[in-house]
Amino acid sequence: MAEPLNAYPEEWPDGLAEQLVAWRRHLHRHPELSFRETNTAAFVEATLRSIDGGLEISRPAPTSVVARLIGAKPGRTLALRADIDALPIQEESGLEFASEVSGVMHACGHDGHTAMLLAAVRLLSSRRDRLHGEIRFIFQHAEELPPGGAIELVEAGVMDGVDWVFGEHLASQLPLGQIGVVYGDMAASPDNFTITVKGYGGHAGFPHRAVDTIAVGAQIVANAQHIVSRCTNPLDRLVVSITQFTAGASHNVIPDTAVLKGTVRSFGEQVRQDAREQLLRIVQGIAAAHGAEFEFDYVLGYKPVVNDEALTRILEEAAVELVGRDAVVRTPPGMSGEDFSAYQQKAPGTFVNIGAGNPARGIVFPHHHPKFAFDEDALPIGVQLFVRAAEKLLEWDT
Amino acid sequence: MAEPLNAYPEEWPDGLAEQLVAWRRHLHRHPELSFRETNTAAFVEATLRSIDGGLEISRPAPTSVVARLIGAKPGRTLALRADIDALPIQEESGLEFASEVSGVMHACGHDGHTAMLLAAVRLLSSRRDRLHGEIRFIFQHAEELPPGGAIELVEAGVMDGVDWVFGEHLASQLPLGQIGVVYGDMAASPDNFTITVKGYGGHAGFPHRAVDTIAVGAQIVANAQHIVSRCTNPLDRLVVSITQFTAGASHNVIPDTAVLKGTVRSFGEQVRQDAREQLLRIVQGIAAAHGAEFEFDYVLGYKPVVNDEALTRILEEAAVELVGRDAVVRTPPGMSGEDFSAYQQKAPGTFVNIGAGNPARGIVFPHHHPKFAFDEDALPIGVQLFVRAAEKLLEWDT
Amino acid sequence: MAEPLNAYPEEWPDGLAEQLVAWRRHLHRHPELSFRETNTAAFVEATLRSIDGGLEISRPAPTSVVARLIGAKPGRTLALRADIDALPIQEESGLEFASEVSGVMHACGHDGHTAMLLAAVRLLSSRRDRLHGEIRFIFQHAEELPPGGAIELVEAGVMDGVDWVFGEHLASQLPLGQIGVVYGDMAASPDNFTITVKGYGGHAGFPHRAVDTIAVGAQIVANAQHIVSRCTNPLDRLVVSITQFTAGASHNVIPDTAVLKGTVRSFGEQVRQDAREQLLRIVQGIAAAHGAEFEFDYVLGYKPVVNDEALTRILEEAAVELVGRDAVVRTPPGMSGEDFSAYQQKAPGTFVNIGAGNPARGIVFPHHHPKFAFDEDALPIGVQLFVRAAEKLLEWDT
Amino acid sequence: MAEPLNAYPEEWPDGLAEQLVAWRRHLHRHPELSFRETNTAAFVEATLRSIDGGLEISRPAPTSVVARLIGAKPGRTLALRADIDALPIQEESGLEFASEVSGVMHACGHDGHTAMLLAAVRLLSSRRDRLHGEIRFIFQHAEELPPGGAIELVEAGVMDGVDWVFGEHLASQLPLGQIGVVYGDMAASPDNFTITVKGYGGHAGFPHRAVDTIAVGAQIVANAQHIVSRCTNPLDRLVVSITQFTAGASHNVIPDTAVLKGTVRSFGEQVRQDAREQLLRIVQGIAAAHGAEFEFDYVLGYKPVVNDEALTRILEEAAVELVGRDAVVRTPPGMSGEDFSAYQQKAPGTFVNIGAGNPARGIVFPHHHPKFAFDEDALPIGVQLFVRAAEKLLEWDT
Repeated sequence: MAEPLNAYPEEWPDGLAEQLVAWRRHLHRHPELSFRETNTAAFVEATLRSIDGGLEISRPAPTSVVARLIGAKPGRTLALRADIDALPIQEESGLEFASEVSGVMHACGHDGHTAMLLAAVRLLSSRRDRLHGEIRFIFQHAEELPPGGAIELVEAGVMDGVDWVFGEHLASQLPLGQIGVVYGDMAASPDNFTITVKGYGGHAGFPHRAVDTIAVGAQIVANAQHIVSRCTNPLDRLVVSITQFTAGASHNVIPDTAVLKGTVRSFGEQVRQDAREQLLRIVQGIAAAHGAEFEFDYVLGYKPVVNDEALTRILEEAAVELVGRDAVVRTPPGMSGEDFSAYQQKAPGTFVNIGAGNPARGIVFPHHHPKFAFDEDALPIGVQLFVRAAEKLLEWDT
Repeated sequence: MAEPLNAYPEEWPDGLAEQLVAWRRHLHRHPELSFRETNTAAFVEATLRSIDGGLEISRPAPTSVVARLIGAKPGRTLALRADIDALPIQEESGLEFASEVSGVMHACGHDGHTAMLLAAVRLLSSRRDRLHGEIRFIFQHAEELPPGGAIELVEAGVMDGVDWVFGEHLASQLPLGQIGVVYGDMAASPDNFTITVKGYGGHAGFPHRAVDTIAVGAQIVANAQHIVSRCTNPLDRLVVSITQFTAGASHNVIPDTAVLKGTVRSFGEQVRQDAREQLLRIVQGIAAAHGAEFEFDYVLGYKPVVNDEALTRILEEAAVELVGRDAVVRTPPGMSGEDFSAYQQKAPGTFVNIGAGNPARGIVFPHHHPKFAFDEDALPIGVQLFVRAAEKLLEWDT
Repeated sequence: MAEPLNAYPEEWPDGLAEQLVAWRRHLHRHPELSFRETNTAAFVEATLRSIDGGLEISRPAPTSVVARLIGAKPGRTLALRADIDALPIQEESGLEFASEVSGVMHACGHDGHTAMLLAAVRLLSSRRDRLHGEIRFIFQHAEELPPGGAIELVEAGVMDGVDWVFGEHLASQLPLGQIGVVYGDMAASPDNFTITVKGYGGHAGFPHRAVDTIAVGAQIVANAQHIVSRCTNPLDRLVVSITQFTAGASHNVIPDTAVLKGTVRSFGEQVRQDAREQLLRIVQGIAAAHGAEFEFDYVLGYKPVVNDEALTRILEEAAVELVGRDAVVRTPPGMSGEDFSAYQQKAPGTFVNIGAGNPARGIVFPHHHPKFAFDEDALPIGVQLFVRAAEKLLEWDT
Repeated sequence: MAEPLNAYPEEWPDGLAEQLVAWRRHLHRHPELSFRETNTAAFVEATLRSIDGGLEISRPAPTSVVARLIGAKPGRTLALRADIDALPIQEESGLEFASEVSGVMHACGHDGHTAMLLAAVRLLSSRRDRLHGEIRFIFQHAEELPPGGAIELVEAGVMDGVDWVFGEHLASQLPLGQIGVVYGDMAASPDNFTITVKGYGGHAGFPHRAVDTIAVGAQIVANAQHIVSRCTNPLDRLVVSITQFTAGASHNVIPDTAVLKGTVRSFGEQVRQDAREQLLRIVQGIAAAHGAEFEFDYVLGYKPVVNDEALTRILEEAAVELVGRDAVVRTPPGMSGEDFSAYQQKAPGTFVNIGAGNPARGIVFPHHHPKFAFDEDALPIGVQLFVRAAEKLLEWDT
């Protein structure tokens, strides 16, 4: 891994480098769960208000903050997005600025995203007079918890008039200094399901008087494997995972209920719909085969993140200028979800990964891990990519 | 194993011992398949007609022969039954009197049954003047092939007026000299089924365009195990065996059809009906789960053989007198079928096993095996048990 | 159902009928869990000491009480057994004398067993002078919880010198007035197992990086059906039930562990050993097939209760004298367990069911149900059967 | 679909258009199976010898023909390949020039490939004087039957000195007039396997005495679904299809052997190796779980066809020149195999599809179908693409 070329640029205003880290650490110490980011939103708003740049600040949702930087002349509109929520995880990172909230942790880097976007606001708002068009900074709540905050903001109109939307994610699995771009499919559609098998409980010694929900549930698990292995085009990318099986509480009673939970990860609406229908058909068929009843609860998750080709090309160029050709990598799609896709329904968008892993500093743990961390030297890179995106996409007086 | 006490009784008429073996060997040399026992029936009828005993001989079915020995005075009626058909097996016994018909073999001992009953006719008909009532000798065709010959004979009236029915089976798994009696359930109800899974064939590389009948068939097999393991009272005795799975003929084509064949063996009408319904329900459910169609063909087999307690007790006494207390054993029920049950629908009946195995003489192979044989010393024991049954059950002038 | 012929005999000593019910209700109000029957044992001992009959009272285990009634002359020894423990169930019977202990209930009738045996002590000890031999009254702790109290008592020597052992169980599924006897197999061997499937957890979107313990566990459940359906003689009686499947706690994480619990119910040591081996083999094979590890914990339960034929015949005669031929029924074996079997390893024993159900009085709930109850009119029948057993089996001066 | 721009170019030599069709129909009438293309090879050789162009003709394998067109000056070498074998299919096309060989049919268009390449030889050899370098025409036997003819030719040295290799396939699923190019993965690696499950046969009524190979085989099928659904990266493309299940021949005998056949289709050596190992592990584990033995025969098929990016780009340009931008489509990879990959191990290669379907003329049946056909108007397009490839890739004097 090459050293990042220009982690903290010399031309940055005094104190911004220190602010960036300070903002991030403050947020890290005080994480808040999805839809409950009251203090976080207040902190963001206060910080925005402290920036002398003629921003229009609003709260399109109780815990989201949007700042509009409107240029002197008309032009296009670029939205930049950071998510601000934390996770229900007990931090074990050992950091001196670790979470002060028991059981809640910024274990996905959203504290960094928020700080980076705040710094980008400060840098870009100082150039407002030269801007044609608008930059809309979206500090979004609740990325981690479906239905997610993005859809709420979109419905509140934050994407109205937006021409492009751009988002960044710090990535501990990508080495510090690298930037990962993706053309097309980037993040899957993560639907969740809960299947409740309802049989008839009874004494374990008299199975014929019961309808054995564990036996039925096991056959559902076994038969559901066919969705991916037999019913899906091998060129499509689909995952059906059953991640919870809960039934019974003793050695000698056949339970009357078994609960199966899981997720369907797909790209493309047809694959997703087919998978849902096949799963339902299998649950119906297996339940009928064994005389059981069932409930089938299927919650559609975020739409897939599909990056716009033209926009991604521009961002890739910006990334190359920033970190060099060799440090810009094309990363494969991931089967996890992101509600950044909600913005992409309204305007071409792209979402990039900012390398933030650093084994030399012990920064190796995956996102959502109690020991997750990222290298703070990634922060100025993310800030600069936000700024360069604005420079490239919008018109500026010189 | 004790020597049989009285294999060939001294009081037997001249030549009967030789005749018994000669009859048997003739039949063994000329086996005929079920429903095609033309020469066998002719041989039986000719032999019966050669016996000077005032028999009434009839053909209630084309290849069955019934002889009625009607006593001087009125009384009860006892039916004695032997089955006469052979099997589609290529004999490998190496016997000097082995089958002369390619691919057909007396591999279940029916040749012996026929010879024993003929000898019994000769012995009993010589005492006709002393008989009150009637002995009806049934030489039945087609025991091996459902729907079996017995049902046809019953419908033709051969059981009309019968008070008791008694049958014997030579058993190579029971040592020579022993007689096996069974109280109650003796032979299961052997139903057969054929399941045709109909999907949609296609190239093995494009499973999503096909409905994979092998995958569906495999799940039917797996799920059908639940019938016995989950749906049946552990105190009941049920077998569901899938014995044929035929699908596909290449490495790269998903076949559009899979054929599963098998059998359900049960005791008791409720268990049988439940098993049939559960199997159908499983086939329906699994096919529906995977979008396949199916055909379900279920052929009811013989009813179970259930021996009458009182009659069995009398026969057990006769057996004890014949071979001694220690040589009369109570054998467990078997999961194979026997259309002797058809007679038991009309009158109390019992069916016993005549020990005919003899490891010392290499007679160890199971019934229906190409090397099956039985010890011919069992023949006179079977003859005498027929005679003693008649002595015990009917009234005779002395 | 006929009225019981002689629910409370006229010749009973004053107050015994009232005592019987009072004892039972006292015990019902104050249930104690297995191995914790401190107050129950104290109550039994105090009651025994209040009976003026020259009993030798001992505590072979901390919460068991044994009383020996030793006759004037030498003779045979008969053991009579009652179990005294309750269950971890919250009573919902609505009885006025319902449990006063939260979460603990006499839901299997052991309160009645104890009261019946106390009454039998009172009746029999009044005749001690006429007794040849000995009656040993065993008030046993912990029938409900393996390894059970019986084995502990046997090891402490309570069966030393015993010739016969006799036990009774109130049965809500048998109508009041009936007595159910069983020849041979009566209660199965109830072994318990816990299978821990150990895989490798991970994100639900990346199954290839995980070893999916739910998928493996489901295949264990599916394949374990073969033990009963394919590997066991259909004439044997075996149940393998998986009654608990616990894995995972979210929609998007493949769990690294799945826990399966269940029970094997069998008659006969060979069937039991075979089932255990087959289960282990299946767990091994399936785990290996999918690259998982496992732990296999198998706890042998009670031995099967197998009633002695001769002793059962004598008890059946006693039952017939008591309630009449028509009210004595032969009941099939059950797949539940009973540690009465521990005594049967030492002496011929038989265990009978005393009918105590009464739909007309709403007494219909099964044992171990929160609304379980029994008809108290069954108590004097059980007492008299204990007494008649002693009369028939032992020698008494007249 | 636009009309092909220049199906038969005006500048073609007299009679070539007629020859092209005549060659093709001759070959179609006289199809020969893989490795038995004796007459086909003789026909090709004779035709080549009839072309007056200074070709060097050889037989690197008994039924393959290679013609080298060596230019006047040194230069690069381009190989052009056609496959010549037919399939064991009974033709039902109804064509007037249908197969005259019972049970053998050109059902994949190789007759067209051969004719196209012959025409290309005629066109290109007339310009030999102007050629720098070499064109090597490969008429390859046995594409349809692993191990295939290509590997044999490669081992015989036909690729020695070759710089690029180019092949075409007529495609009935692609409309006439279109040309389909593929960047990167084009055809999967088609491995075949045969699993023989060896158990212990027996009477269907006594499953405990048998090891039921159908039950074991069914579990192998069910568990093998996990390879794709659980063990493979959802971004990879893998198919595991079990296409044959053959066991048993009656309703009442558990068969001692079950044979499963199928195929693994993959891209990439690691995925392929992993799939093979997982399949073996599953067979081992399931067999062990149920006490069965097995044989596992796995035959590696062709390597995947992976088209060289640079070469494909050049060919795409040629195709665009020929049929227009709109008629050149990028087609997805297919899960079927092609031994064209053997040549790609030696030199950069690309393989393209020539549209030859035409619903308006009833030409709709898939390859390997008894009614398969292709539109003969596709032939001149294929010829011209061969020629243009040579024009673009090699240096020619003008």
